[in-house]
Amino acid sequence: MKPPESEPFIPSRLSRVEKYSNPWLTVSEDQVQFSTEHTGPYGIIQKPDFSLVIPTHGEQLALVRQYRYPIAQWRLEFPQGALHHSTADSSPVAAAQQELREETGLLAEEFIPLGSFHESYGLSSCLCHAFVATVSGVAHPEPELTEVITATVWVSPTEFWQLVSNGEITDAASIAAMGLYQSLNRKGS
Amino acid sequence: MKPPESEPFIPSRLSRVEKYSNPWLTVSEDQVQFSTEHTGPYGIIQKPDFSLVIPTHGEQLALVRQYRYPIAQWRLEFPQGALHHSTADSSPVAAAQQELREETGLLAEEFIPLGSFHESYGLSSCLCHAFVATVSGVAHPEPELTEVITATVWVSPTEFWQLVSNGEITDAASIAAMGLYQSLNRKGS
Repeated sequence: MKPPESEPFIPSRLSRVEKYSNPWLTVSEDQVQFSTEHTGPYGIIQKPDFSLVIPTHGEQLALVRQYRYPIAQWRLEFPQGALHHSTADSSPVAAAQQELREETGLLAEEFIPLGSFHESYGLSSCLCHAFVATVSGVAHPEPELTEVITATVWVSPTEFWQLVSNGEITDAASIAAMGLYQSLNRKGS
Repeated sequence: MKPPESEPFIPSRLSRVEKYSNPWLTVSEDQVQFSTEHTGPYGIIQKPDFSLVIPTHGEQLALVRQYRYPIAQWRLEFPQGALHHSTADSSPVAAAQQELREETGLLAEEFIPLGSFHESYGLSSCLCHAFVATVSGVAHPEPELTEVITATVWVSPTEFWQLVSNGEITDAASIAAMGLYQSLNRKGS
């Protein structure tokens, strides 16, 4: 251990080699200098940032029920999806608007940013941009080919936390966004 | 689009091939039947579940300042670390106790589970098990070789959300755990 008054050693990249890639992510291995004595490998996942939106109507919040293949289970979560760098508008708010429309068919006018956070910064620099939106109407949902979504569910904030306790909501990004939303509500009230 | 009254198609794995592995994670590619018409690849990250602990002393909460290599930045977060399947006690609470001691040197007697959530279930089944602990003493911190940690910082809940707004806390797991903690406090009060 260094004494606390010294500057800490900042790990630095010695090299990067791509190990795997698919249309949604790239996995690389860096060789890293962790300290003056210690070098070793570090796996990095590169994937696009995403947006998440809390759709509101009065006190009620909309969740989507989605099948999540890596856990082989249905979960409730806020609508969310990757920023589309191929489209004209690759901004976080454009992704939030598009995902809300595609996953729920809900239309909203005002999208207020709640803040951004890292999904898993031990692995990736991927950011989640969280928004709250006031729902103004309904169109027809259009999920992507790899998405299985059944229904939009409206809940109160109390019901949201009950669904977390029950294990029906287990998405860190949705739970973090709800924490942010309530912290801003408390500040505003 | 199927009509809403029909059963949704559940994606199923056709095959799995390991693509990359290091001591902390394994990356595989599944071939998946997403619908009767659509098959394609899906990247899966396998990594151990982890525990996170909110150390409390009265109203104050302890954060650690840690350098996170994938974002090349310092961040404040709650102490957290992987479950150690190589040790005698691989339980979530044992990991929470160990990480608290290693990262902060803080000692705590009671570890109360706040709940568990998925870090990123679009990619991985990795779970975060969140706890709150009442700090009862201080020992000497012992970070792991690949960890760069400088200091323990005590904050109030209001200061926690200010640090999120400032971008000094951007860890989804820490923010989600704080949301859970405050939702349980509201229920209890």
